[in-house]
Amino acid sequence: MTKKKGSLLSYRPDIKVVDATIRDGGLVNDFQFSEDFIRDLYRTNVEAGVDYMEFGYKASKDIFNEREFGPWKFCDEDAIRNIVGDNDTDMKIAVMADVGRCNFKRDIINRADSAIDLVRIATYIHTIPAAIEMIEHCHNLGYETTVNIMAISTAKEAEISEALDLISKSPVNGIYIVDSYGSMFMEQIDELADKYLAMAEEYDKFVGIHAHNNQQLAFANTITALTRGVSYLDATVSGMGRGAGNCASEQLLGFLKNPKYNIIPILKFLEKHIEPLKKSGVVWGYNVPYLLTGQMNQHPRTAIEATKESRTDYLNFLLELNDKD
Amino acid sequence: MTKKKGSLLSYRPDIKVVDATIRDGGLVNDFQFSEDFIRDLYRTNVEAGVDYMEFGYKASKDIFNEREFGPWKFCDEDAIRNIVGDNDTDMKIAVMADVGRCNFKRDIINRADSAIDLVRIATYIHTIPAAIEMIEHCHNLGYETTVNIMAISTAKEAEISEALDLISKSPVNGIYIVDSYGSMFMEQIDELADKYLAMAEEYDKFVGIHAHNNQQLAFANTITALTRGVSYLDATVSGMGRGAGNCASEQLLGFLKNPKYNIIPILKFLEKHIEPLKKSGVVWGYNVPYLLTGQMNQHPRTAIEATKESRTDYLNFLLELNDKD
Repeated sequence: MTKKKGSLLSYRPDIKVVDATIRDGGLVNDFQFSEDFIRDLYRTNVEAGVDYMEFGYKASKDIFNEREFGPWKFCDEDAIRNIVGDNDTDMKIAVMADVGRCNFKRDIINRADSAIDLVRIATYIHTIPAAIEMIEHCHNLGYETTVNIMAISTAKEAEISEALDLISKSPVNGIYIVDSYGSMFMEQIDELADKYLAMAEEYDKFVGIHAHNNQQLAFANTITALTRGVSYLDATVSGMGRGAGNCASEQLLGFLKNPKYNIIPILKFLEKHIEPLKKSGVVWGYNVPYLLTGQMNQHPRTAIEATKESRTDYLNFLLELNDKD
Repeated sequence: MTKKKGSLLSYRPDIKVVDATIRDGGLVNDFQFSEDFIRDLYRTNVEAGVDYMEFGYKASKDIFNEREFGPWKFCDEDAIRNIVGDNDTDMKIAVMADVGRCNFKRDIINRADSAIDLVRIATYIHTIPAAIEMIEHCHNLGYETTVNIMAISTAKEAEISEALDLISKSPVNGIYIVDSYGSMFMEQIDELADKYLAMAEEYDKFVGIHAHNNQQLAFANTITALTRGVSYLDATVSGMGRGAGNCASEQLLGFLKNPKYNIIPILKFLEKHIEPLKKSGVVWGYNVPYLLTGQMNQHPRTAIEATKESRTDYLNFLLELNDKD
């Protein structure tokens, strides 16, 4: 229980910051970002020392209607190339591919021909075998891979152990702790980090964390995981992400001690793009309904609905949540 | 380093929740609350199982102009009695008295004749001797007392140790860890909690925490301190408090496992009083300027000013903060 990596003044070279603004933020506005936003975010992340930038989902156009979403739901090679060219920077490019929502055999090409470096495979516990098929496919195409096991706060410990056991034997590079409902406390992150790291390190893999801010614990849980030895840290500009959003880049980069990280480009991006986006009516971030779904370890969909309707009848909302059990 | 009290499912009967809404929230609106707000907050706290309700400051009318502030800046006995009567409840009544800003010999009467149970003495490290004089005075009048040592994030360890040593030998009942600038991380709270508890427990005193939310860590730091053995936990409804505000009652009561605590009255109060208060233009809570003063371990006054002016030129703001060093 006392294991701790690093101190408040040192830094660990194994730390990687992963910007997930377009991908998780795209869930708020159906990926309808201006090209200017995306171009500036790319430059911002490079200047800020961010290690990976996730451009969006690699979703199948057989399943999702192209007219209903912006281009970053699909992350066509051309769309990414249009922004990054040959990506002649130190920052790598990531996309997320959901089990069951992508046609990876058709849509993910050889890494040698792709702008993408890292494919992040998102799965539930019950779809781990399908995730492993995707991991192996992407690995064989030359990609770095992570697996993001979602909704673990409602899974049993034995299920998580079995999932980790299966995944550890796959060629995946990293395994993510994902707090999908923003329901977890730092004590639980400590325990999960120990559990994930024990398995991952045995197989020479790293562990990452993707936190949600329902209880205003996304940053706290992220730095707790970091202190415990987790090394891939997801963040989004202004915490932009589904529902209560994520750990904010400006929180995380202000905390990390490695001088390669720089908060200033993020502050400029907030001024230029995030403030106007918020003024235009795009809404994310902590509020009471998100707190309540987080406390009850429920999917935030009811709180997203309540937020859209600007509901402030919090007691009725709580009673509705209780009814769903 | 592994010391931990309680678990996520147990509860500790030594935990006390202290509502500081009027006192810290009053710093936002010059204590101009409606009588209806105060009456309902009192009932709300009683129903929610809150252990202490802080009504405001016991400030001297020789120093502060009565016409510039609402009554809770001064907490006259009559004003409190008008709300609580004989306070025939399980909840105790607290006030805060600042070293150098009150006339405690004149304004604090015998506890037997007072509606007040607890006097919280707020001090900086360099005014500890004056704080001890106040502690002794209030103790002799029959009050429970705590000492809230402010701005410790800019103090040296040896200074804190000396302050704790002096205070431990006083008759004070409890010592508060106060993160005035919202600059502290959970690792620092762990260390401070151990340090405060080691001294306090030797002298049969308890330790409390008062956190600020500049980095969205007020709740995280409060539950970290709790896990470490700290027992008096400050919270405010909706986190209302100076600048970035405090740990929110609805966060804390949703976390605590003792069935005496009940979030429902708090939710009703949020609907009835906090939403209208916010709509009326009273502003508090996390934003980027508060994050930056927190990261830089500075007093939030510059961020309060920036917030009043609705500034979003974050980079300029950061540069101004750097200039102040």
